[in-house]
Amino acid sequence: MVAQGSPVDVAIIGAGPAGLTAAIYAGRALLSTVIVEKGLPGGQLNETDLIENWPGFAETVSAPELMTQLRSQAERFGAEFVLDEVSRIEPGDSVHSIIASERTIQARTVIVACGSRPKDLPAEGADRLKGKGISYCATCDGFFFQGKRILEVGAGDSGLTEALFLTRFADSVSIVVRHPMDDPRAFRASGILQERAKEHAKIDFLWNRVVEEILGEDHVEGARLKDLTTGETEDVPIDGVFVNIGHLPQTGFLRGTVDLDPEGYIMTDGCLRTNVPAIFAAGDARIDANRYAQGVVAAGEGAIAAIEAEKHLAAAESA
Amino acid sequence: MVAQGSPVDVAIIGAGPAGLTAAIYAGRALLSTVIVEKGLPGGQLNETDLIENWPGFAETVSAPELMTQLRSQAERFGAEFVLDEVSRIEPGDSVHSIIASERTIQARTVIVACGSRPKDLPAEGADRLKGKGISYCATCDGFFFQGKRILEVGAGDSGLTEALFLTRFADSVSIVVRHPMDDPRAFRASGILQERAKEHAKIDFLWNRVVEEILGEDHVEGARLKDLTTGETEDVPIDGVFVNIGHLPQTGFLRGTVDLDPEGYIMTDGCLRTNVPAIFAAGDARIDANRYAQGVVAAGEGAIAAIEAEKHLAAAESA
Repeated sequence: MVAQGSPVDVAIIGAGPAGLTAAIYAGRALLSTVIVEKGLPGGQLNETDLIENWPGFAETVSAPELMTQLRSQAERFGAEFVLDEVSRIEPGDSVHSIIASERTIQARTVIVACGSRPKDLPAEGADRLKGKGISYCATCDGFFFQGKRILEVGAGDSGLTEALFLTRFADSVSIVVRHPMDDPRAFRASGILQERAKEHAKIDFLWNRVVEEILGEDHVEGARLKDLTTGETEDVPIDGVFVNIGHLPQTGFLRGTVDLDPEGYIMTDGCLRTNVPAIFAAGDARIDANRYAQGVVAAGEGAIAAIEAEKHLAAAESA
Repeated sequence: MVAQGSPVDVAIIGAGPAGLTAAIYAGRALLSTVIVEKGLPGGQLNETDLIENWPGFAETVSAPELMTQLRSQAERFGAEFVLDEVSRIEPGDSVHSIIASERTIQARTVIVACGSRPKDLPAEGADRLKGKGISYCATCDGFFFQGKRILEVGAGDSGLTEALFLTRFADSVSIVVRHPMDDPRAFRASGILQERAKEHAKIDFLWNRVVEEILGEDHVEGARLKDLTTGETEDVPIDGVFVNIGHLPQTGFLRGTVDLDPEGYIMTDGCLRTNVPAIFAAGDARIDANRYAQGVVAAGEGAIAAIEAEKHLAAAESA
């Protein structure tokens, strides 16, 4: 249908849990549905290995297996997958144009489910050991680190909240801080979180240091830290690294088209409508979902966005 | 742990998709978790047969199978199931008391996930043929009625919206209306929906009639309608019945404790907090989720409620 150039009912940008669930719901409503993804379907789930908290699987499921199921489910109800990168949306009166590298897709409704990426730890070995002891999600992976020694990178509100959460599992949580203890820039976190972290028996701070390298062959065994004053490095034995140095919503292509908050998250109302009629948003690129960064939360939003897109189409068809 | 009377970290009321997902998340955060359910786990999903739109299952899954998976998953992470009926919650300073028929549970946080039930069609055979041609959810089941003749019971906003949605699938949708066409009470729906329904080629209205009986042995084959003026009955051949005459949130036990809207739905903020500290709500008993009545939406809220409950506990522990 994309080739013919006639508008589809629903175009979904992004094939993570939000986009794939939206496709399942749109397809089962017999809406013609295209899902545009610039890479492998799965979104952030592709960064992980084993999933224990996707509801419906009593046993651990692998991320690729879950994604294969979701994709097959969406295809079964008619969703067409397109591998392409969207550069912008040109809103129209009743049909929006989605401009991608190799094609333009005309769509009566658009669901933006392009997700958000955690900022990568800028250290040697960080890419190689991702999912092998390096995690970007404590809610998802904390459970796997019971009785372990953890290094937390990130001293903002979410870094300290994560460190405190990880004390439920770990024997020790060491927080790396780029500034000296008495430097006012040491913490970006609120005072109360700082107090809680400083007073916690399992938490200690590694001041004035950065992570230079994550050590280990096929799983994390330690970290090489560099003292920013002396330049000296020190290897500390650890079992896991949690990174919390910010997220980047993948919404650059929406700038000037759809209202974003200062950090780039898409603003919507409770029905997941953006400020542009017939453009909806779901999942981690959206202002509230991003707080949780959980696949099942994004999936729930995908269902809502598809239901609202159908309502919009029903109203438009009879107008 | 319940027997010992010492407070649990999280008590969850209701074992539908919201409650079970909350239990999975709370358990994986190593919080002691009790889930109280007055009947079979599964909530509204128990009213259905086959599920095609729970994300993660490429093939159709049976409702009992999905519920078994969810329950095992929650138990695997330590949730304790209690079969009992909650009569009220007595809020305390740091511990709330959940008063049930056979026990009182002390809990540091409470997640109310007690759901909402559609009002049953008051007609002979309606109970027997539920899930066998009688459905209470068009989003869930419309897809199964492609090319069929449908009877819609309910002429309010959601009834007409549902009827219009069902025209995507069905050959014809007949809406039963209790009042004569020219009676101002005939419609509770908004004018624009009335217009759309009246003008739709696939929709017709059966005025001044009620459903007396649903006909069919093991699946719906017709309906016996009664004319309210003459008292005469007429059998019409149909393949499916969709009922939309209102929902009843199961929140009577919260009255006077937690803020409810006029219809009985639980009011919360965006973090699913009720007006009572440490009491959260998730799923169809909650004011917004109820609009969609979808398992995956409720599940997403269950995850959020458990994450927020953990945050509350972390703050309380260090206070």
